[in-house]
Amino acid sequence: MRWLRYSLKGETGYGILSDEDTITVVRGDPLGKYETTATRLQLQDVTIEVPIVPPTFYCVGLNYVKHISTEGLTIPKKPDVGYRANNALIAHGQDVIMPADATRIHYEGELVVVIGKKAKNISVGEVKDCIFGYTIGNDVSERNWQASDRTFWRAKNTDTFKPMGPWICTDAQIATMQTVVSVNGEQSTRFDTADMLFGIEEFISTMSRYLTLYPGDMVWMGTDGHSPNLQPGDRVDVSLTGLGTLSNRFIKEALT
Amino acid sequence: MRWLRYSLKGETGYGILSDEDTITVVRGDPLGKYETTATRLQLQDVTIEVPIVPPTFYCVGLNYVKHISTEGLTIPKKPDVGYRANNALIAHGQDVIMPADATRIHYEGELVVVIGKKAKNISVGEVKDCIFGYTIGNDVSERNWQASDRTFWRAKNTDTFKPMGPWICTDAQIATMQTVVSVNGEQSTRFDTADMLFGIEEFISTMSRYLTLYPGDMVWMGTDGHSPNLQPGDRVDVSLTGLGTLSNRFIKEALT
Repeated sequence: MRWLRYSLKGETGYGILSDEDTITVVRGDPLGKYETTATRLQLQDVTIEVPIVPPTFYCVGLNYVKHISTEGLTIPKKPDVGYRANNALIAHGQDVIMPADATRIHYEGELVVVIGKKAKNISVGEVKDCIFGYTIGNDVSERNWQASDRTFWRAKNTDTFKPMGPWICTDAQIATMQTVVSVNGEQSTRFDTADMLFGIEEFISTMSRYLTLYPGDMVWMGTDGHSPNLQPGDRVDVSLTGLGTLSNRFIKEALT
Repeated sequence: MRWLRYSLKGETGYGILSDEDTITVVRGDPLGKYETTATRLQLQDVTIEVPIVPPTFYCVGLNYVKHISTEGLTIPKKPDVGYRANNALIAHGQDVIMPADATRIHYEGELVVVIGKKAKNISVGEVKDCIFGYTIGNDVSERNWQASDRTFWRAKNTDTFKPMGPWICTDAQIATMQTVVSVNGEQSTRFDTADMLFGIEEFISTMSRYLTLYPGDMVWMGTDGHSPNLQPGDRVDVSLTGLGTLSNRFIKEALT
C-alpha cells in the first residue's frame, strides 16, 4: 500500500495511491485511526508533500563500506545513530537551493524506515512489527562544510537539503532492492540496498535499548558509492526498487 | 510573563502564571493567536508538562571556556550549532532514569531560548524580535558514552536525559543572570549566564543564514563548570535568575 500526503487548494491531507495513480482520500491518521472516504483525486492534480514530519529525525551516518572508504572515513564498530533536522525537509518535486557560498554539494540516496508504533527495548525479531513503511531520502551534503565545521548543522541541515518521498510504501522487498541514483537522467550510482554494515533490525533494536521510538519517527539508513559535484540545474532522481523515484532539481540561491 | 503547559485530569493546556502561582487558562496557541479565559487553576493542583516540544531541537555544544577546558576539549573558532532529540525531553518534577549500564552521568545547567517567529537570514540586531522567551534546560550527559560513541545518541539523548522547564518567561535579564546548579540542596556550580563564547544574537543570526527557524524551536545555549558524578537518589536543581528552578530527581533504571 502507498500512503501519500498531498495538498490541494491550500488544504493538506492523506490518501492511498492505487496503481493507476488514483488517490483515495482518507480521513484520520495513517499511523492511528483512519477511514477511507468516497473522494478520489488524480496524482497529477495534487502537490506532493513531505509524507510525515518526524517527531525525531534519525540518520545512520556510515553504513556502507564503499562510501566510507571513498570518503576516507573509518568503518564504525557499532551502530551509533545520528540526527538530521526537520527544517531541511522538502518534498518530491521541490527544488534544493544551493547556498551562494556552497561549492561541493553531493547527493546521498537512502532507504528511509518509518516507525509505526511506540517501541522501547525491543529485540531484533520484534523490529519489523514496529515499522509502518518505507520511503526514499536524499541526504544532500556540502562536503567542505562537513570537513570544516564542528557539527553537520549546515553541511547536512541547510534548508532544502533533505528531500524525502514521494510516498510511504507499507511493503518492501529489501533483500533484492537496488538503490539507483541518476543525474539528469544518467545513472550515476547503483548499489544493493541491503548491503548495510548494520541492518535495520540491528540498528533499531540497539537504539530502542536507550530511547523510545514514536510513530512517525524516521530512520534514514545511510548510502553507498560516491556523488559527483552537483551543478545548478542538475536533476537528481533516487529510485529504490518497488518504492518509486524521488526527484529534485538543484538550483543556485538567488542573493537579494 | 510566565507561560506554563500543564495537564489536569488527562487534558493538557496552556496558561499564564501569576506571581501568586495562579494559572489563567488560555485558549489557543501562545506562539500564535490566543485568548485568556475566566478559568483559574492553582499551580499546586496541576502537573507541569514540557513547555513546548520543539519542531527542531538545537543545542550549542561548547560555549563556556571553563567547561571546555575542564572537559579537555578544544575552544571552537565559530558558532557551529548541534542537535538534541525530542524523545529525551521530560518536564520539571519528572525523574531522570539512569540506565543500568550508565556509570558517569553529569548535569549541565543551561539557558534555553525559545523561538517565537519564523526567521531566515536575520542580522544580529534582528534576533531579539524573533525570540518568544526563555526557559531552563539540563543537558544530562553520560561521559563514558560521550567518549566511546561516534555520535551523542545515547550519551545525551537517552530517554529522560533532557529535563526542560518549568515554564517559559517572556522577559529575562541575561546580562546580570546567574546559573546555579545544586545537588541535594547544596550549590555545586555557579556561573554568569552571559559569559558565553558566542552569544545568543551571534548564534541565531549565523544559523539563520542557512536555516529557517520556526516558532517553538529551542536553542539550548551551553553550560559552564563541572558536574560531579551523579548518584541514584540525587536531586538536581538548575536555577537561573528570574526564570525559576528546574528540579529533577535521578533514579536507577529498574531492570525487568
